Amino acid sequence: MTRYRFVLEYDGAGFVGWQRQINGLSVQQAMEEAIFRFTGETRTVIAAGRTDSGVHALGMVAHADIERDMPAEKIRDALNFHLRPNPAAAISVEAADPEFSARFDCVRRHYRYRILNRAVAPVIDRGRVWHISQRLDTDAMNEAASRLIGKHDFESFRSAHCQAETAVKTLDELTVERTGEEIHIRSSARSFLHNQVRIFAGTLAEVGKGKWTPDDVSAALEARDRTAAGPTAPAWGLYFVKADYPG
Amino acid sequence: MTRYRFVLEYDGAGFVGWQRQINGLSVQQAMEEAIFRFTGETRTVIAAGRTDSGVHALGMVAHADIERDMPAEKIRDALNFHLRPNPAAAISVEAADPEFSARFDCVRRHYRYRILNRAVAPVIDRGRVWHISQRLDTDAMNEAASRLIGKHDFESFRSAHCQAETAVKTLDELTVERTGEEIHIRSSARSFLHNQVRIFAGTLAEVGKGKWTPDDVSAALEARDRTAAGPTAPAWGLYFVKADYPG
Repeated sequence: MTRYRFVLEYDGAGFVGWQRQINGLSVQQAMEEAIFRFTGETRTVIAAGRTDSGVHALGMVAHADIERDMPAEKIRDALNFHLRPNPAAAISVEAADPEFSARFDCVRRHYRYRILNRAVAPVIDRGRVWHISQRLDTDAMNEAASRLIGKHDFESFRSAHCQAETAVKTLDELTVERTGEEIHIRSSARSFLHNQVRIFAGTLAEVGKGKWTPDDVSAALEARDRTAAGPTAPAWGLYFVKADYPG
Repeated sequence: MTRYRFVLEYDGAGFVGWQRQINGLSVQQAMEEAIFRFTGETRTVIAAGRTDSGVHALGMVAHADIERDMPAEKIRDALNFHLRPNPAAAISVEAADPEFSARFDCVRRHYRYRILNRAVAPVIDRGRVWHISQRLDTDAMNEAASRLIGKHDFESFRSAHCQAETAVKTLDELTVERTGEEIHIRSSARSFLHNQVRIFAGTLAEVGKGKWTPDDVSAALEARDRTAAGPTAPAWGLYFVKADYPG
């Protein structure tokens, strides 16, 4: 029996999210079924982040045990063959420590939120970006973002369905950068609350439009009340970029 | 009657190419039908480049005359409304000189060819990049590309169906750059031959794989024979990026 570490790319539109659901195909189920197809083994696949329905991944890390003796590269190719035609693939597969946990050993998760900020809706990047036609003030967004960095009670920035016991988290990075017609919001932390990055994006967009000031964002943080923060930005603009592990 | 200049984005997969065809919907036909729907006018739309089936555009420039008196922004929005659900949109529309020709006044066309150079096929960018799993040597590709810059007879680098009277063209730019897992080949010239950028990409990929040397590319150029150059790279990696005009 070998524990493997997978780095996965997936298109959130093709799944009901990471975690198994009764209402549709999750990435987890697709992965577990693909593993079954070439090993005959029923395995549980654990990921660094349980992304919501519609959220994309460029570098999700996951782990699973496989008994069948195969080189890691063959596992990658067999997995990808059996994942088709679902929009998911293992970018890399490697043998890991038998105790490695993609979820519990992860020391930092990195997300990127993509906004297309131009008058006209996307064509090439349809389903890949949140379209906002009003010109956003990224300086103001960055100033507001800086108010959220650090250790805080993020009660205002989590979904009502969030199951975490506490909303106290340490946010390591929250930056806003314009690159051509796009605005990228980068966020990293050891862990995030449910919908936290999407509520950050929705709230920062209000600042970008001039409806909110950075001080309003500070006040929203202090309120510790979900209704005090901005709306939840759509899932299709969000990407799980990578996960860091010690060593 | 006002002449308008359009900047267009389109997904090549949705069309049989720019030019009207009997075998399917072209971007030109989609544009002309959309204009008809909100003006009742039958107009011809002329573009800077007649992209092939499957080739994308981020900033194609085109022109057409419209008699109906409407602000340019309303024309843009009406056009985009009537282009749906086809994957094309006008990013901008503005009134132009009545003599302006998107085709004949264009002094430089800019293309980008995207290669995804990693072991595993694309997921998020499926249909947007040419996937090559073998690691490509971009230094060798750049050296080979430099042999093609300047004024040459590009007979070896045009399709057998190319209708241009002469294959003598001046290539202003041909560069190869790795950016993360992608390789971008940028090319600009006053005008290009049929399939020229795709044959450049196909030939440079052979160099990247080590099958060809830069000297082989120089020899291919000198041969003035299509069979002396490399294969035509797939349409779905190619983007018409922008067109330059005087002033």
